[in-house]
Amino acid sequence: MTEEMSAKLEKLAELQKKLYAFKYATSSIYLDSATVAPKDTEEGRGEALGILTEYMFDLSTKPETIELLEYLKEHSEELTAHQKREVELLLRDNEFKKTIPAEEYIEFQRILSKAEAVWHEAKLNNDYEAFKPYLKDIFEYNIRFAKYYKPDQEPYNTQLDMFERGLTMEKCDKFFETLREHIVPLIKKIMATGKNEKLPKLTGFAIEKQKQLTEYLMDFMSIDPNHCVCGETEHPFTLEFTKDDVRITTHYHEDNFESSMYSVIHEGGHALYELGGADEHKYTVVAGGVSMGIHESQSRFFENIIGRSEAFITAVLPKIKEIFPEQYGDITPRLAYEIINRAEPSLIRTEADELTYCLHVMIRYEIEKKMFAGEITVDDIPAEWNRLYKEYLGVDVPSDEEGCLQDSHWSGGAVGYFPSYALGSAYGAQMLAKMREDIDVEAAIASGSLKPIADWLKDKIHQHACMYDPEELFLMVCGAPFDPTYYVEYLEKKFSDLYGV
Amino acid sequence: MTEEMSAKLEKLAELQKKLYAFKYATSSIYLDSATVAPKDTEEGRGEALGILTEYMFDLSTKPETIELLEYLKEHSEELTAHQKREVELLLRDNEFKKTIPAEEYIEFQRILSKAEAVWHEAKLNNDYEAFKPYLKDIFEYNIRFAKYYKPDQEPYNTQLDMFERGLTMEKCDKFFETLREHIVPLIKKIMATGKNEKLPKLTGFAIEKQKQLTEYLMDFMSIDPNHCVCGETEHPFTLEFTKDDVRITTHYHEDNFESSMYSVIHEGGHALYELGGADEHKYTVVAGGVSMGIHESQSRFFENIIGRSEAFITAVLPKIKEIFPEQYGDITPRLAYEIINRAEPSLIRTEADELTYCLHVMIRYEIEKKMFAGEITVDDIPAEWNRLYKEYLGVDVPSDEEGCLQDSHWSGGAVGYFPSYALGSAYGAQMLAKMREDIDVEAAIASGSLKPIADWLKDKIHQHACMYDPEELFLMVCGAPFDPTYYVEYLEKKFSDLYGV
Repeated sequence: MTEEMSAKLEKLAELQKKLYAFKYATSSIYLDSATVAPKDTEEGRGEALGILTEYMFDLSTKPETIELLEYLKEHSEELTAHQKREVELLLRDNEFKKTIPAEEYIEFQRILSKAEAVWHEAKLNNDYEAFKPYLKDIFEYNIRFAKYYKPDQEPYNTQLDMFERGLTMEKCDKFFETLREHIVPLIKKIMATGKNEKLPKLTGFAIEKQKQLTEYLMDFMSIDPNHCVCGETEHPFTLEFTKDDVRITTHYHEDNFESSMYSVIHEGGHALYELGGADEHKYTVVAGGVSMGIHESQSRFFENIIGRSEAFITAVLPKIKEIFPEQYGDITPRLAYEIINRAEPSLIRTEADELTYCLHVMIRYEIEKKMFAGEITVDDIPAEWNRLYKEYLGVDVPSDEEGCLQDSHWSGGAVGYFPSYALGSAYGAQMLAKMREDIDVEAAIASGSLKPIADWLKDKIHQHACMYDPEELFLMVCGAPFDPTYYVEYLEKKFSDLYGV
Repeated sequence: MTEEMSAKLEKLAELQKKLYAFKYATSSIYLDSATVAPKDTEEGRGEALGILTEYMFDLSTKPETIELLEYLKEHSEELTAHQKREVELLLRDNEFKKTIPAEEYIEFQRILSKAEAVWHEAKLNNDYEAFKPYLKDIFEYNIRFAKYYKPDQEPYNTQLDMFERGLTMEKCDKFFETLREHIVPLIKKIMATGKNEKLPKLTGFAIEKQKQLTEYLMDFMSIDPNHCVCGETEHPFTLEFTKDDVRITTHYHEDNFESSMYSVIHEGGHALYELGGADEHKYTVVAGGVSMGIHESQSRFFENIIGRSEAFITAVLPKIKEIFPEQYGDITPRLAYEIINRAEPSLIRTEADELTYCLHVMIRYEIEKKMFAGEITVDDIPAEWNRLYKEYLGVDVPSDEEGCLQDSHWSGGAVGYFPSYALGSAYGAQMLAKMREDIDVEAAIASGSLKPIADWLKDKIHQHACMYDPEELFLMVCGAPFDPTYYVEYLEKKFSDLYGV
């Protein structure tokens, strides 16, 4: 290797370590703000985050960086596969950011640092008008940035591609159409059985006891407590510092222990993905999950395909009985399985069952698409939201708090993220079929630990971090491109059996 | 103002905001590590902190910064008093840091980022040998840096001055001598009474209930919960992000609720100091407490002079009875006052009573002084520690865990910090005398809120943040230089009365 090359590679490593340090810092500040920070403290946090974000933006876009990356790209035959990927990902990020004027990027970050608190208050007060100007800005900035980045492309396609490389409206439309065709009639049949009314409604789950269950579940999932702990926040999330330091959060409800149970398993799925990366990716941009779709495929795989399976609830039921003898003493495995899979149209996405969940996602997708196409404005969002809930799910939305103000994504700037939830759910069904070729999934669950399942996923997916784009990775894992039929068949089989329809 | 000057002032503000952002980030990371981070996560944290520290060091020492500060110093007649102070403090910091080779500074930070975890394990395992090499490095770096900074001065004097500007070994020796002369015979008299044996030993304080008391105490102290919250850590501390965002922590012991109660009041005193700064200091280096001595004067004032007064325990006793009826149902105010002031030689500084506390500090001071003078080495610290505990307090130290491994300060790099605890305690007694000229302290306490006391301190001390050096500030507050007689008289009066000696 030439001396010049070796100096350049040192600079490449240094650049990524610096980006890592700033990401670490902003993650830590975010975690604090979501967990323990006192209420009236946004101002100081916003000032700090603004400056740190500026440093990151500058690191990614300054001429010295571009020059370095271009040099390395030109000499890519001298790079290892890993280094090539580092350069590719950095250039990709750079290609996006360099089209945005720095002051607009920073201004957008400042808006976001306020938007979260405003949304929070607006939701508490059921006051869409208070959040509306921020939402307007957030959509406008996203549309503008998408146009800067790829002026010749539909901005919403650009947006979808940023969360799930390769995803387009065409693909989404087709995927969602398939889902709707099968799910909507199935839900109607389920509702007609009247079976949901017969399921018991259990309440009074002490939070301290729910915390015991959290520990048990994380252990069952083979999550190492020396590298991952669970905190409490209003909205559950996963946050990764490194592959050795991942945090998940949950929210406990006294009258609904399933809510936290399945949040823990969902976030635990994200956590296993992050914890399973190979050491070689550490402190490089290759570290971490490759896309939102693949990430959700892991979280929703554990939450639903595993967590809401008859085998799983049967395996954990003795522990649930031990912790909640009053409520669960007499519940049979089959009844527990029915309780955790109660399927019915509802208002809140995060509390929705596996079957209706994707309809919630489609509604958000339709709204985002129309906003990007200029067919509706922020003034129309509440009415459009309510109209679609009626059309897709047959429910009346009583307030914006339980309607278009329910999710935190938009206030965090994430527009185009929602489809990845549905896509990830569907990826999981196809991965399950592949996994069954290698391991007896039900036997693994019954053995009392999800480790064999987590290890399979680690080997096929987690260890690779961002080395491959999602489509390529999917092909490597499943040996075929994504096909929604797996998911539709999975849902139809599971829910036909559950409801006898 | 010239255009040049106005550009320079903008740069001055920008520099300080950047320093603020990095301090915010490192504080957030520290807080996380001390509260919720999983165990095996130091590596990734160390990498991030190393890089962020490097940025801060570079910001403080780069030629552009020095040039800016020197320009502003030369044109100081054009600056406001506040700007002058900003330049003065930045130059002071710069004068220290510029003498240190960057790589040594960064290496020291890396050692510190590991030392804390090593000390923690060493303490758990009572294994001084494991910590010894780190302690050796920490003392050596401190001595070396002190010599770089002021080659013509005794390094330990340089060190003391860094924590409490103006403090010297000569002053410390004199102050400690006065204290010893009065405290040692008083303790002997107290022990001879045998009164301590008659005090009840109360146990079984549920932690959830102690948390209620924490909330009550913070409210009693007039700490705004929208700007300050209390967390849990092994060693209590206070951490400030801005004057609007301060965190305190405590540690709950089931068998000793006073430990957490007085930690909360102590850290609450630090918090009030930080929360009381004027808005104009925000995002500048003038923000925050001016010295460790003044900081401890506030925390130990609230903890002891107020918190362990008969008036205070009488005022909060009804709440204590309400929360702990089993243990405190029959306790009279006078007995409660005697319980919280039980004075006797002991092993652990942080649990020591007000009277013997300073002797614990003196022991650490003597050891640091001898280490700096080269009279002892890290090999001698355990024996020297134990010898001094026998000499000063008459107790036998059974293990290093309860001996020289008990404090976190050295592992955090803070050598020369301890004297400020004793000094701060003594400052407080003189401040009390001055405060009595303006307000009826006992009546304020009896009224059910410490707000009048906090407001007096805010007006005289807190609002000024770092505008004045500690000696100057003390003179402004008390109208006279520091005189340890106030403290000695305060202790003699209080404890003679308590023990009838």
